[in-house]
Amino acid sequence: MSLEKFFCPDSVAIIGAAREEKKVGHTILDNIINFGYKGKIFPVNRNADEIHGIKCYKSILEVPEPVDLAVIVIPNKYVPASLEECGKKNVKGAIIISAGFKEIGPEGAMLENEVIKIGKKYGIRILGPNCVGLINSSCKLNATFALGTPTNGDIAFMSQSGALITSILDWASTQEIPMSKYVSVGNKADIAEKDLFEFWLKDPSCKVISAYIEGINDGLEFIEMTSRVTKKKPVVVVKSGNTMAGARAVSSHTGTLAGSTKAYDSALKQSGIIRARTVRNMFDYATAFSYQPLPRGRNVAIITNAGGPGIMATDACIENHLNLATLEEKTVAKLKEFLPVCSNFHNPIDILGDALPERYKKTLEAIMEDKNVDAVIILLTPQAMTQIFESAQAVVEVIKNSRRKIPCVASFMGGKGVKSGVDYLFHHKVPCYDIPEGAVSTLNAMMCYNEWLNRKEEKVKIFDVDKNTVKDIFDLARKEKRLELGENESRKVLRAYKIKIPVACTVKDIQTAREFTKGTGYPVVLKIDSPDILHKTDVGGIKVGIRNDAELEEGFNEIMNNVKTKKPEAVIRGISIQEMIQGKHETIIGVSKDPQFGPMIMFGLGGIYVEIMKDVTFRIAPVTESNARDMIEEIKTIKLLKGARGAKPSDIDSIVETILKVSQLVTDFPEIMEMDINPLFVKAEGEGSIAGDVRIRIE
Amino acid sequence: MSLEKFFCPDSVAIIGAAREEKKVGHTILDNIINFGYKGKIFPVNRNADEIHGIKCYKSILEVPEPVDLAVIVIPNKYVPASLEECGKKNVKGAIIISAGFKEIGPEGAMLENEVIKIGKKYGIRILGPNCVGLINSSCKLNATFALGTPTNGDIAFMSQSGALITSILDWASTQEIPMSKYVSVGNKADIAEKDLFEFWLKDPSCKVISAYIEGINDGLEFIEMTSRVTKKKPVVVVKSGNTMAGARAVSSHTGTLAGSTKAYDSALKQSGIIRARTVRNMFDYATAFSYQPLPRGRNVAIITNAGGPGIMATDACIENHLNLATLEEKTVAKLKEFLPVCSNFHNPIDILGDALPERYKKTLEAIMEDKNVDAVIILLTPQAMTQIFESAQAVVEVIKNSRRKIPCVASFMGGKGVKSGVDYLFHHKVPCYDIPEGAVSTLNAMMCYNEWLNRKEEKVKIFDVDKNTVKDIFDLARKEKRLELGENESRKVLRAYKIKIPVACTVKDIQTAREFTKGTGYPVVLKIDSPDILHKTDVGGIKVGIRNDAELEEGFNEIMNNVKTKKPEAVIRGISIQEMIQGKHETIIGVSKDPQFGPMIMFGLGGIYVEIMKDVTFRIAPVTESNARDMIEEIKTIKLLKGARGAKPSDIDSIVETILKVSQLVTDFPEIMEMDINPLFVKAEGEGSIAGDVRIRIE
Repeated sequence: MSLEKFFCPDSVAIIGAAREEKKVGHTILDNIINFGYKGKIFPVNRNADEIHGIKCYKSILEVPEPVDLAVIVIPNKYVPASLEECGKKNVKGAIIISAGFKEIGPEGAMLENEVIKIGKKYGIRILGPNCVGLINSSCKLNATFALGTPTNGDIAFMSQSGALITSILDWASTQEIPMSKYVSVGNKADIAEKDLFEFWLKDPSCKVISAYIEGINDGLEFIEMTSRVTKKKPVVVVKSGNTMAGARAVSSHTGTLAGSTKAYDSALKQSGIIRARTVRNMFDYATAFSYQPLPRGRNVAIITNAGGPGIMATDACIENHLNLATLEEKTVAKLKEFLPVCSNFHNPIDILGDALPERYKKTLEAIMEDKNVDAVIILLTPQAMTQIFESAQAVVEVIKNSRRKIPCVASFMGGKGVKSGVDYLFHHKVPCYDIPEGAVSTLNAMMCYNEWLNRKEEKVKIFDVDKNTVKDIFDLARKEKRLELGENESRKVLRAYKIKIPVACTVKDIQTAREFTKGTGYPVVLKIDSPDILHKTDVGGIKVGIRNDAELEEGFNEIMNNVKTKKPEAVIRGISIQEMIQGKHETIIGVSKDPQFGPMIMFGLGGIYVEIMKDVTFRIAPVTESNARDMIEEIKTIKLLKGARGAKPSDIDSIVETILKVSQLVTDFPEIMEMDINPLFVKAEGEGSIAGDVRIRIE
Repeated sequence: MSLEKFFCPDSVAIIGAAREEKKVGHTILDNIINFGYKGKIFPVNRNADEIHGIKCYKSILEVPEPVDLAVIVIPNKYVPASLEECGKKNVKGAIIISAGFKEIGPEGAMLENEVIKIGKKYGIRILGPNCVGLINSSCKLNATFALGTPTNGDIAFMSQSGALITSILDWASTQEIPMSKYVSVGNKADIAEKDLFEFWLKDPSCKVISAYIEGINDGLEFIEMTSRVTKKKPVVVVKSGNTMAGARAVSSHTGTLAGSTKAYDSALKQSGIIRARTVRNMFDYATAFSYQPLPRGRNVAIITNAGGPGIMATDACIENHLNLATLEEKTVAKLKEFLPVCSNFHNPIDILGDALPERYKKTLEAIMEDKNVDAVIILLTPQAMTQIFESAQAVVEVIKNSRRKIPCVASFMGGKGVKSGVDYLFHHKVPCYDIPEGAVSTLNAMMCYNEWLNRKEEKVKIFDVDKNTVKDIFDLARKEKRLELGENESRKVLRAYKIKIPVACTVKDIQTAREFTKGTGYPVVLKIDSPDILHKTDVGGIKVGIRNDAELEEGFNEIMNNVKTKKPEAVIRGISIQEMIQGKHETIIGVSKDPQFGPMIMFGLGGIYVEIMKDVTFRIAPVTESNARDMIEEIKTIKLLKGARGAKPSDIDSIVETILKVSQLVTDFPEIMEMDINPLFVKAEGEGSIAGDVRIRIE
């Protein structure tokens, strides 16, 4: 069922509507009535005949007309029976306000499961339990027990914290934030972000989606769904709980590096979500998306009546990777016609402390026409001659009449003295901030969203691979109850997915090793091949740079001795001998499994860059080509790969391809728990990459 | 002269007091009268007999009584004559509001110099020109033309942007920020930050100093002075012009040379200044310093009536390096006595959505007694049963009665609905923020300041060095008009300052080179010694790892050939041969000269860490031992030096010592423009450091 009946029901029953003013069941009924709901209202209360002059029913079954939505506000243990009655009454939507479910422990969880079962049996969609309810200004429905009068607008807000709804509601009505829909999802027994985002995607009364999220259940579904939504409407999210996993010690081990914070970071990025650091940022951004057109580029013009704030805005622009627009010559010429000679005619454009509204007007008019300008920031400080309200009027007038539609935001710095101007701007859909940095941060969010919209659509690339071989290898390992694949098995997996590996074979004696080198030549690398040895270096199981027959023999014997001494119980398959790759960078591609999002791919430069500098990036699989390219571009050591100080650039395309193949592999085989290509040798541009070593662990 | 007469004059003359309401000279007189100034007021106006019923004088010389402070508001060209008259009248302080000086170009600069000269002649201290004026609530003096009524309090604010004064004044009176002094410094012809900070240091009515700074004139003096001030009173600063574009905007605004961002960053750090990112942060921090005691440590307790905001606060704590306090067992036991069973008894302490004031009160009481808690954050969301005003009362009451004095800050999230509580808290000196992140960021600022206060006093360490040798070398170079020292000269400089260098000498032929290696043994390094070659690598002028006589001959000839081919015109002194240092990290100590702050020392790990990762830190010379240690600790690669993955730790003490010696060298010899010890080889702990190569460029 669509959520239509939740947001615009023709009739609402309040099960647990109460006469006592202090009770939640009373407040909800009050809110529904007072906000001006136009549908039918049916209070249900075993012990009352009427509340506020509205007839009460002993049970929902007694209601003589159809009921679209039931709001349940009774003690937890009575909820299942009540929901059963809803089912019998053919109610299709229920908001369970009552607490005392999953959040209180196993007993509550059992009760919640019962509720879910009843919902499924009758096809009732459920919001909550343990929630504050739902508001939709478009239909004048306030089915919450929160205080305050909701505003009108086109921003929808979903919150995993009910209390935050009460704060935001209060905030929005104070600051004129164009919020129209509030949904408290509570325990998310049924309705969750996916249902709401999908619904709002198609809801014409919603232009911007905002959400406070603590955690989500199905990561991949979330990414898939949100990516579709963000292509049509901006989604601004505060995700909290960012440091719990981040506190985990970081080691070279991919599993530990890839805490779930990283997974959320990646998921939100891959979904095109605009991430806000704080709730304040969230509504700053959402309001701007609601009020203003999107910018087409990153070039900003700053108009100010004071130098200081102009400099603050300039600093903030650069820190946010916004450019200060270079004005067209004709714009500068136009400005010179009417601005005083001491003005700054270039960005930031300082129209001086004695600027009257007319000067703001003419300057903004000239700037709005400038093709080099993608967005405008208007700054005002309340100086002796400043006409605050009239300046706001001038700004609004120019924006309204301008043929070019570009985003304009303002910062009128001050308190009650500038309030008339701030209010006028907000009322005419020009977002205004108390500090210039707020305006800049918001424009940056809009620009990022614009860039997301302009990304070309791309499918995940599929390579022609040999799945059966891999399946056989995994089947065998499972049969033999091995979680870790052997050297040769892992190599075969890579080969099956067309990931290049060095020529190699496992030999049991020195003669065979010598034979091998006749084909490849020197130098070669020797590595112990044993299913029992994960960290070959630790047991002295690796020798690199073997340059001739003598060193080969010496190395072979040394490894065998080392392993026998340090790991006498290990089963030895032999020694793997392989050609040694030269003239390259060492990179790492790792995979770990996140409980929420499944396989997550890591990329970074090998050695201390990963271990000490933690210079790695993550994406959730499956990744697209541009995801993979972003991953590589995001590492701080990218300059090394691109050829720093006159060095040849590395073959970045081949890294992209390898990431995509690994992504395909771990998507095809969800049983892969962990995987590390370390190192992936990357050679010069055009010469490809080769996996030096690989570890694969399966479920 | 002290600035006493500026802040608390017994009499004020307004030169240019005007009858016309729109004129600045009118507004200033109004402001002085209306704010309730108790001293004598003498308007000076050639064409008026009285203004507002106060007798006017044609010239300050006609005023029959002594004048402490003159406020000058007349067209720029008349200012010098007027200041002359002030001198003759024995006025010791003048605020020049008038614009049209240095900020308008050379002509104005000449006028400004004239004014400065007159000031010096008569011993008149000058504020401005081109400023908004000065406010001191403690003496009920408002000598500005800004609108709005100043509040009372103990925060002083200095601004290099006059317009910002008008904004902050408006803001402070709206939000009840305890601001009492505002000084607009304008062009800083005379009075600048150094005078104001020094004055406020001793002013008992000032508890917190805040400032908006675009640029300063004398960097070293600023560091010296501010370091003294911050040991007594917190100084919170917004420094703008932090990006290249921002710095350009600064110089077009005030004509101040911005100095490098790195230099300002270092200077503010070394001065113990609390740096605020935005003006909003500045007043958040300043207000907390004014209202609350300092925390003694970083352990925070969070009390909340909702989970979501508690998580936000927790995230923010971790991101700001604040610890969530582990409560004492007896505290948890006490909480369990009265909190509902579903509460969270550990940090963040969730007292649930139905928390009434009593629950806030008892919880805060228990927490305030907990020895593990250094600071408290109280969060409130306006839920159905929440009593906002009464909760604020409860919080204030507990704080007032608590024996332990620890900082408490709050975040009441919402708008007009929570305003009564927010206002009550502010009024009773509990800072309150609209989002939890604001509270956390403020506590962090307080904790950083506490740590600064607890740093032990230290003098710059002075080594017993041979200054004369260095002086001779520089004299010779200057005589020969060489800016770049030769290899051997540079080495001698290091030796004179007791910085260890490898055994080395410059040889002209292979025989002598061989002789040298008999003393040192192999391996050795060969480097071209030429005053004309700066970048030896670029011309093939370096060979490392020479292991025997044959390689020595080969290397010697190769270098000579390379240099002759690539730099045939270079004067060759010979080839420098030196022992090769092994088993070490390569670091860099660099020196560059900042126009504002003089020599600035850089430290980082060599090679790509500096070049690609830009992983370097800076401090202004002279540096103290703890400065030097901070520099080393701040680099991201510090783990490498400390011995990552079981490697031996490096000799960090010897790096500290080398930095201190370099600091002493460049302080002793300001003619050093640039210097690079690259690499400084750092050996294992206890084994010291050795300068591998050094370049020195002098003025």
